[in-house]
Amino acid sequence: MASALTPQAEDFPRWYQDVVAKAEMADNGPVRGTMVIRPYGYAIWERMQAEIDVRIKEAGAENAYFPLFIPESYLAREAQHVEGFSPELAVVTHAGGEALAEPVVVRPTSETVFGEFMAKWIQSYRDLPLLLNQWANVVRWELRPRLFLRSSEFLWQEGHTAHDSYEDASAYVNAIHTNVYNDFLEKVLAMPTYLGIKPPSERFAGAINTMTCEGMMQDGKALQMATSHELGQNFAKAFDIKFQNKEGQSALCWTTSWGSSTRLVGGLIMAHGDDNGLIVPPHLAPTQVVVIAVREDDEVIASCNKIAAALKSAGVRVRIDNGGASFGRRVTDWEIKGVPIRVEVGPRDLAEGVVALVRRDTSEKVSISPDAVAASVPGILEQMQSQMYEAQLARRNANTHDVQSIDEAMQAAQTGFARLDWDLVGSAGEAKLKTDAITVRCLQRRDGSMPVTDTEKDLICIVAKSY
Amino acid sequence: MASALTPQAEDFPRWYQDVVAKAEMADNGPVRGTMVIRPYGYAIWERMQAEIDVRIKEAGAENAYFPLFIPESYLAREAQHVEGFSPELAVVTHAGGEALAEPVVVRPTSETVFGEFMAKWIQSYRDLPLLLNQWANVVRWELRPRLFLRSSEFLWQEGHTAHDSYEDASAYVNAIHTNVYNDFLEKVLAMPTYLGIKPPSERFAGAINTMTCEGMMQDGKALQMATSHELGQNFAKAFDIKFQNKEGQSALCWTTSWGSSTRLVGGLIMAHGDDNGLIVPPHLAPTQVVVIAVREDDEVIASCNKIAAALKSAGVRVRIDNGGASFGRRVTDWEIKGVPIRVEVGPRDLAEGVVALVRRDTSEKVSISPDAVAASVPGILEQMQSQMYEAQLARRNANTHDVQSIDEAMQAAQTGFARLDWDLVGSAGEAKLKTDAITVRCLQRRDGSMPVTDTEKDLICIVAKSY
Repeated sequence: MASALTPQAEDFPRWYQDVVAKAEMADNGPVRGTMVIRPYGYAIWERMQAEIDVRIKEAGAENAYFPLFIPESYLAREAQHVEGFSPELAVVTHAGGEALAEPVVVRPTSETVFGEFMAKWIQSYRDLPLLLNQWANVVRWELRPRLFLRSSEFLWQEGHTAHDSYEDASAYVNAIHTNVYNDFLEKVLAMPTYLGIKPPSERFAGAINTMTCEGMMQDGKALQMATSHELGQNFAKAFDIKFQNKEGQSALCWTTSWGSSTRLVGGLIMAHGDDNGLIVPPHLAPTQVVVIAVREDDEVIASCNKIAAALKSAGVRVRIDNGGASFGRRVTDWEIKGVPIRVEVGPRDLAEGVVALVRRDTSEKVSISPDAVAASVPGILEQMQSQMYEAQLARRNANTHDVQSIDEAMQAAQTGFARLDWDLVGSAGEAKLKTDAITVRCLQRRDGSMPVTDTEKDLICIVAKSY
Repeated sequence: MASALTPQAEDFPRWYQDVVAKAEMADNGPVRGTMVIRPYGYAIWERMQAEIDVRIKEAGAENAYFPLFIPESYLAREAQHVEGFSPELAVVTHAGGEALAEPVVVRPTSETVFGEFMAKWIQSYRDLPLLLNQWANVVRWELRPRLFLRSSEFLWQEGHTAHDSYEDASAYVNAIHTNVYNDFLEKVLAMPTYLGIKPPSERFAGAINTMTCEGMMQDGKALQMATSHELGQNFAKAFDIKFQNKEGQSALCWTTSWGSSTRLVGGLIMAHGDDNGLIVPPHLAPTQVVVIAVREDDEVIASCNKIAAALKSAGVRVRIDNGGASFGRRVTDWEIKGVPIRVEVGPRDLAEGVVALVRRDTSEKVSISPDAVAASVPGILEQMQSQMYEAQLARRNANTHDVQSIDEAMQAAQTGFARLDWDLVGSAGEAKLKTDAITVRCLQRRDGSMPVTDTEKDLICIVAKSY
């Protein structure tokens, strides 16, 4: 049944579609570009949400909920913002059986409406910083939609904060980028990414600086996994977000925004999957272990239940597969879904006092006493988590090529990432790269750390094709 | 500062608005009828979500996510459904800079799109029951919006299930109504409600039976806290949701849907609040205890931190209020927010080896050793939870009047609920009641249990004004 999936080497985009369909992650919705996230895909997203949400709350931000509908006039207040989003807007012109006096747009992002209310809620320096986040759906009309990667409606979190100084805003959004996004990507998603700032041409519409985490997919293309923006005083000016400072004077706030979305699910699939399907890192997996009855036999099922109960007590997210389809078919289905560990319980093995334990990433199979499963599994899950990260790091490093010219960069970007001096690129270089759909993914310092601004000297850049 | 709120007895609707504003629960959004849910209101909603979600999962349903946009033609497929929702629809006519070939509606509810995909996913009896739920925003254009109670956009969960028989569908939705909604309302929200079925005139558009939980607000009006619908085969016919049964024949499914929304927050406020603000039941409260420093003094703050740490270790949701505004002002603010217990830590009390512990519902104040707080609080929270429930039950019962005629019912409904024989009402009686905005809230059996259908003999009904 592994043949159910197109091999990666044959056609990577088709392999991706196959995994999304066969792992029952998502379907195309009836309206072009929308998606139906099926229970397994949504369970993965819920785990992502839980892990990101706890980090956001640790960073001191509080969740809130702002309206789906935004007056068209709000977007127009920030010039770059409206220019950036206008082509992607969905517009409600009729409601309650009547034409609306002012059409409303379905939020493509919520900077404007957060800005409006921040202005209302903030009076003095005592109200700062104001640290908000929301989990919501947003709409950006897509001409070439792809499930999870580019959909007309997607789910995300968007953080919006206001500060009393550039320094405080900059430090906060930097901490979000590092302690929320990068920490989640490394420790949960087992994905090393290149952290850096976008060149001015690739910044968020209305930002003075955009930070990114660029992941490398298995076809060598880049996927932007999360972005964090310093908005300077652009939105504060447009929405009159002012505070009375300690000296009693009125001053403009400095705002930030930062987001991550269901696109992360696409990144998970393309970074970790193989020809047998998805491989979900143990820290993320909604089901870490599936205990499979080889046959629907009373003794076997009793043993499955006992093993599952012991695993649950050990804090492992476990489920039981008692039958229905053939054993082979069920194994294939769990492989496609990428569950980290399978425990296969069969009558012959049981007679010999063992069950089989199979790791999804290495296919390594060991025989083990049923009573030893619960004690062994947590350690194996941890080992698998760190080995998956190490494997990603090795792949990423092996496919990142240090080059000395735009031409070499363009060649390297056919199969991976290129790294070169930002001074060698500039806007002329960016234009040339774009002729082959290659972009500057991010700017970094020579030691790989994030610059504060793109005007720092001696920066390097990461160049790649991208999703 | 208690004077910040209009007294309930003076003007209940204005008291409600005052609480929503002063407790920083929500604001009106910029587009008519929409709302901004502020962090404190959202924290309460998150706690509701968590408690409802765990019960939904225990009932075997899985979360998924369906698109915001639904083709206009989908709604038209079920005749009663489109008739019920047409007046409330928001319609997107333009997207991506172009007029859409077919306008799309913003989901008012998702029966139609779930139906479309259930038909695709269900092949045989082995795929049944299919038990799905989603947490999402929906839009129903409101002419007379009120925050949380009736907003043009609201947040909710909507469950959608498909079954192989009427009996299985009916039993499942009954279990949801009882074990999810009623259990949550009683044990978490501390709210007794009248469980019953709607008369045919008040059913959900497209349902063959609608179950409801009717709560009594402090002005004697009813609030529908959650509803569960048997959809019969209406949507299965409209969307061709068929399965191959055990005999190998094609058969239509039986579907259900069930929902609860941010309206619950409105119910919480109106059932439990008093002239000093909100009172949040301990099982629900995002903050169960606030430890307040009477003065910003090192010893006091150290003591607050120690008490809070001990409470946290005891599993209590606690936060510290170290100062900023005056002590009196802060106490008033926490009262308005309805935090169940305040621990007030002052230098004079500390010198005598005590702190003050104040219950929000009774205002009862006791002096207690700081070291004894963590051991005492969990018991007090449990006591408060059950006493709040008992108080609601007593109020509800005292304000429910058994009457013998429509005229008496209309009089009783000026201040509370009326209960009378359903045979005395019927459609003629419903019309008369409506002349004074009174409706039949639900039908019950004489023993207070839920009937299976409205055609059962000897039913009684609960009659009231409502939100």
